[in-house]
Amino acid sequence: MALQRPKGTHDYLPEGSPKIQAAFRASSFQTVLQIAQTVLERSGAQFIVTPLFEEMELVKRGVGGSSDIVRKEMFTVFYFGDHGGYVLRPEGTAGVVRAYLENGLKQLPSPLKLWTHGPMFRAENVHQGRYRQFHQVDYEIIGSESALADAEAVALMAQVVETLGLKRARIRLGSVGDQADRQAYSAYLRELFTPHFEQLSDDSRDRLERNPLRILDSKSAGDQALIDELQVRPLLEALGPEAAAHFAEVRGYLDAWGVAYDLDPSIVRGLDYYNRTAWELHHEGVGAKSALGGGGRYDGLAEELGGPATPGLGWAFGIERVLLALEAEGVNLLLAGGPQLYLAALDNENVALAAKLALQVRSQARAEFAYRALKPGQIFREAERRGAVYAGLLGSQEAERGVVTLKHLKSGTQREVLFDDLAEALAEAAVLEQA
Amino acid sequence: MALQRPKGTHDYLPEGSPKIQAAFRASSFQTVLQIAQTVLERSGAQFIVTPLFEEMELVKRGVGGSSDIVRKEMFTVFYFGDHGGYVLRPEGTAGVVRAYLENGLKQLPSPLKLWTHGPMFRAENVHQGRYRQFHQVDYEIIGSESALADAEAVALMAQVVETLGLKRARIRLGSVGDQADRQAYSAYLRELFTPHFEQLSDDSRDRLERNPLRILDSKSAGDQALIDELQVRPLLEALGPEAAAHFAEVRGYLDAWGVAYDLDPSIVRGLDYYNRTAWELHHEGVGAKSALGGGGRYDGLAEELGGPATPGLGWAFGIERVLLALEAEGVNLLLAGGPQLYLAALDNENVALAAKLALQVRSQARAEFAYRALKPGQIFREAERRGAVYAGLLGSQEAERGVVTLKHLKSGTQREVLFDDLAEALAEAAVLEQA
Repeated sequence: MALQRPKGTHDYLPEGSPKIQAAFRASSFQTVLQIAQTVLERSGAQFIVTPLFEEMELVKRGVGGSSDIVRKEMFTVFYFGDHGGYVLRPEGTAGVVRAYLENGLKQLPSPLKLWTHGPMFRAENVHQGRYRQFHQVDYEIIGSESALADAEAVALMAQVVETLGLKRARIRLGSVGDQADRQAYSAYLRELFTPHFEQLSDDSRDRLERNPLRILDSKSAGDQALIDELQVRPLLEALGPEAAAHFAEVRGYLDAWGVAYDLDPSIVRGLDYYNRTAWELHHEGVGAKSALGGGGRYDGLAEELGGPATPGLGWAFGIERVLLALEAEGVNLLLAGGPQLYLAALDNENVALAAKLALQVRSQARAEFAYRALKPGQIFREAERRGAVYAGLLGSQEAERGVVTLKHLKSGTQREVLFDDLAEALAEAAVLEQA
Repeated sequence: MALQRPKGTHDYLPEGSPKIQAAFRASSFQTVLQIAQTVLERSGAQFIVTPLFEEMELVKRGVGGSSDIVRKEMFTVFYFGDHGGYVLRPEGTAGVVRAYLENGLKQLPSPLKLWTHGPMFRAENVHQGRYRQFHQVDYEIIGSESALADAEAVALMAQVVETLGLKRARIRLGSVGDQADRQAYSAYLRELFTPHFEQLSDDSRDRLERNPLRILDSKSAGDQALIDELQVRPLLEALGPEAAAHFAEVRGYLDAWGVAYDLDPSIVRGLDYYNRTAWELHHEGVGAKSALGGGGRYDGLAEELGGPATPGLGWAFGIERVLLALEAEGVNLLLAGGPQLYLAALDNENVALAAKLALQVRSQARAEFAYRALKPGQIFREAERRGAVYAGLLGSQEAERGVVTLKHLKSGTQREVLFDDLAEALAEAAVLEQA
């Protein structure tokens, strides 16, 4: 039997592939990255690449030792059994903040905007349609406590989504307050839930002592019914004066700039170093678990990783989920796929010459050539099959006269072009074609 | 102590980072990928992404169970101990050929050109200055036995290198013949070395029976001295008539197209499914192990992976090594790094307005803004620190009149621009600046 890819992973395939799916179209994947790069770098963000595997300890501190990710979904990496302390990264922020600290990036103009993209890994249950390798675009602003940083990050995420062509994506915005706010709120939740201990799911009984905020995120229907019944007051209504003022300021900027969002009091984060502004990006087109991505402030993270106190915030979205949302909206990200020229010789003696001419054209335009002599009818068929704009024919008479016959496949018109003019003629035609 | 990245891995950093090294400059890394994409896609190649980890069996078959990679340098991946059969990929070809077979890509126009890029992993000894995570650009042509495919692949690798600006990279070209040629040559090597068994290194004694071709690649100085002493006849001079004709044809095309290469009879590959054309790309600037990359034909690989017989060939280069070679030649890949505009308000009431204007400019150009009000001197300093082209000032009087004062930092000239004209004015100026 032929070897297969690991369970829960995917190949991102060329257009026309028989098994292609919306979430795994390689050329759309590329286009998402190109658009993200353009928009993010216009904001002053610089590119960074961090390792795909990191110390287990970094991930534990980055996403929390009690999280499902660390408890159930880690891929561990061994170097021939010698070292078991590495894991494939489940998300990008911890690595970027570690790199910021380790490489002294504090010396760059502050706040520093960084962006990255790449694969993330979670050993999730495959039957839920989740991916064990998926890809994210990450954006971080490190070094500022200003509410303008929060607003800029949210606005930028909205701008990327808009530039991609999504119209029905919505930002859900909330705040998880400061640490003291969450401590007070946790005490309120413990008091509220303790008399109903027996009704809670096993997981939530466990959470009640350790981190009652996580009960609100419970996937258990019973827990959610209890939350409704008890009319739990949202954290957003329990913010202290400083966090409340910060959140009001963030909203003020977004309103002034015309960035749309929905207020979402239900957003909670279970980790101590996530604070204040938190948001998710949702789209009805990707199913019940509709988040395309999310973001938030993490002023305590740098200290958690062993560095000096450094405010920061960031966001990430999943490329696969964005591709699903684009498909749901019928947005086609495909750039013109075919070559400008498909060139073939009519006889064997001219095959190498046709190849040479195609190589020359490639200095300015996309050109393919046939590895053997073809008849005119075959040339047109092969050119059309590849979505070419022009078919080029090179017979002995043409070769002697130093010309190629170009047929514009859509209109059917033919003309002869001198060898030396070929690259330029096709590059010009490509520009006109796009205009 | 602050957490650190795993041994042998690196962070690829923004320009200006205090610890930046040539091989790990994130913006040069991006530029290499952009240039590779442009050149490779002009050849008709389509992008593909395959998983970062694969079945151990795929890697064994792809690079050979007796290779150093499989015997000593694999990172194995476990899902909480449940599955030990995954490994981080050490190279890209096996995954791409697996994806070709698994996803029925044979149905696309043939030959199919695919390209990919991404991290590869080898648990090498760090003291040798080798990387445990490095990055490659990969190119494959699948479905053709034609010598034109070999020549096109070599020419394309040369074109990428030339487009990157490298002048001193050299292609070393050889052929490892067909399977029967290598069997005959292996018999010749066994006969030649067996009387000198005692002089061989332990590794090479082992190779003598299993795969005597690998003796020629030995890193032992004693083995290499013996090879010289015995005046081993190179494989290239022992090709059968078919492989010799194929190689002559490949050389003929490269000569006709003006693609430079050095003939290298010393190139051998130790795996049965690598056949015929093989090459390496070298550069004196990256040290003794001077290969930037290499390529070759692998007509037997698809069958080895459990698929139908499918001819193919491909190449890869290491991005880090290319960056080192570029540094050695003094080639600067950096695109203009600074923003077109650094905009700040002169008083607190206008900070949000300045931000809004900067966000608008970003629809067409790179613009940054200050999170608080600054004095003119501070604005100019911050703008210069970021390498901005223009500093923008927004005072109360300007805000009332709907204008921003732009100072062109290099010339010192100032002018006022209406809010509505700002994006366009800066985009135009950016075009003029580059011309």
